[in-house]
Amino acid sequence: MKLPELGGEFAFIDRIARQPKNKNVLKGIGDDCAVVQINDNKLHLYTVDMLVEGNHFSTDYFTPYNIGIKAMESNVSDIASMGGKVLYGLVSLALPDDISVEFLDEFYRGMYDAAKRYSFDIIGGDTTGGDRMTVSITLVGEVSPSCLRLRSMAEVGDLIVASGALGGSMAGLRLFQKNIKGCQEVKRYHTTPECSMNRLDKIVPIAKAMADVSDGLASEVRNICKESNVGAKIIKNKIPLCDGVQETAELIGEDPYDYALFGGEDFKLIYTVAPENKNKITGTVVGEIIAGKDVMLDDKKLNKFGWNHFTATIKGTI
Amino acid sequence: MKLPELGGEFAFIDRIARQPKNKNVLKGIGDDCAVVQINDNKLHLYTVDMLVEGNHFSTDYFTPYNIGIKAMESNVSDIASMGGKVLYGLVSLALPDDISVEFLDEFYRGMYDAAKRYSFDIIGGDTTGGDRMTVSITLVGEVSPSCLRLRSMAEVGDLIVASGALGGSMAGLRLFQKNIKGCQEVKRYHTTPECSMNRLDKIVPIAKAMADVSDGLASEVRNICKESNVGAKIIKNKIPLCDGVQETAELIGEDPYDYALFGGEDFKLIYTVAPENKNKITGTVVGEIIAGKDVMLDDKKLNKFGWNHFTATIKGTI
Repeated sequence: MKLPELGGEFAFIDRIARQPKNKNVLKGIGDDCAVVQINDNKLHLYTVDMLVEGNHFSTDYFTPYNIGIKAMESNVSDIASMGGKVLYGLVSLALPDDISVEFLDEFYRGMYDAAKRYSFDIIGGDTTGGDRMTVSITLVGEVSPSCLRLRSMAEVGDLIVASGALGGSMAGLRLFQKNIKGCQEVKRYHTTPECSMNRLDKIVPIAKAMADVSDGLASEVRNICKESNVGAKIIKNKIPLCDGVQETAELIGEDPYDYALFGGEDFKLIYTVAPENKNKITGTVVGEIIAGKDVMLDDKKLNKFGWNHFTATIKGTI
Repeated sequence: MKLPELGGEFAFIDRIARQPKNKNVLKGIGDDCAVVQINDNKLHLYTVDMLVEGNHFSTDYFTPYNIGIKAMESNVSDIASMGGKVLYGLVSLALPDDISVEFLDEFYRGMYDAAKRYSFDIIGGDTTGGDRMTVSITLVGEVSPSCLRLRSMAEVGDLIVASGALGGSMAGLRLFQKNIKGCQEVKRYHTTPECSMNRLDKIVPIAKAMADVSDGLASEVRNICKESNVGAKIIKNKIPLCDGVQETAELIGEDPYDYALFGGEDFKLIYTVAPENKNKITGTVVGEIIAGKDVMLDDKKLNKFGWNHFTATIKGTI
């Protein structure tokens, strides 16, 4: 049996996850980070993400500096989605034999600049050979128990909020794929994402469930619903689109909301808020948590969810 | 400039390492694990290793179960080399589209069996697509400050000890590369390594500097010398060879000690011991720490060090 027959990445994760035996593990496989108790006031968060050349980035239109930025921002976003801050990073790399030292200097400059933005150190790693550049980043984060936010914390009646505008990364990718010149500002959403870590101070006090937009709004809302045993209704025309996304979609002849819903890699936060905190929201309300298990887009049940790295690559069609 | 001109993997690591700013980081890039202070009695260890199909393993002669075992044992060995035990593991994977669920089930069975052997949980990970199967494993370990062993702890006059027999992994690999039938026991050193974690109780009380044999005895002794600012003398005919290594080398027409010195992936421990503890040693004395900076093999200075994943693959010659 092949992975797509099983149901792709998420079905695979369900299949291989096992219940941890160590009682300090508060959350194992199945959220943006694993959560481990260090003491009564401190939890550690662990996340790991792998980026493969030709799948998550292309050297045709990523500078090595931008690869470094994207690799770090995408991981920092996972720590942010749990309410935490980053303590340390480790970087494992597979590198083609013909890669230049200058390329790697720039790649590391990107990673160190991102690490500096969020005040953490890169403390270890591993390098080896490989046909395609492959980057796996591990981050260790920290959060107090009262600030921890899980996908499982949503309740019926909560509002669903996007911390920032969406769709920019996929719009930028589509411009690259279609070889459309110009539109540099839209392309930058794809090559130089910036996560919502620095907005956490305002978000955490009101957020209940939280997830980051790695795989598109629809997929992240579905993940929250699955872990919280609830349904959701997304209101399409409430979804905030990044500047230029509408124009890009028109140019290409696609639906700009598809970029936000199914594109991914925007690395903003999706979180739920009790209705009484509506006036404290940072971001845009895009829907609400409802009873049941379905994720609705307006009045239609969604059956398609987000970017799946097993079935689509940037070289394929979306 | 290309990496081999720079001087390969170790020169690259020196180039990209920066001093950590967080004072809880006791050791950053430059040992088998990073070391972080958790409290007065507890340190955490972090290690990450990437294995690439065609470089660290071949599906021609590795079962998926064995890939899982090797991926974990090689990482557990890094935690052991610091004197620690493993707490948690995270697994990030790039997988070809056509990989079967049955293959992955077996691969995970191997990883979980290794995790069970050392009593730790796999608590997170990431999966994505890629041309070649690529496995990056992150382990979090724990050690008390009194049990921590670093590469930098060797002193002139120390004896150098190998915790077990060496050369088996490279001998097994050479049999596979030469398409020689039979010799299953020697081949198993390569496909099913077992690290020295379970011998730590006897080793740590007498060990000073410690490293694990990822890249061959010569390379690990060089690493200890570099970090401790000392030299070393290895006595060739004292090096313990795994059963069958001598015969394999004769069959192929190579030097069996080259397998031990430059082969790597034996995942035994190399450690130094003060001479007064000679009678307490677990393993075999293979040399001693001397003044200076050179690593000597008998009376010759060594200029060649171990397996370098940038310049050799299992498809290349050694």
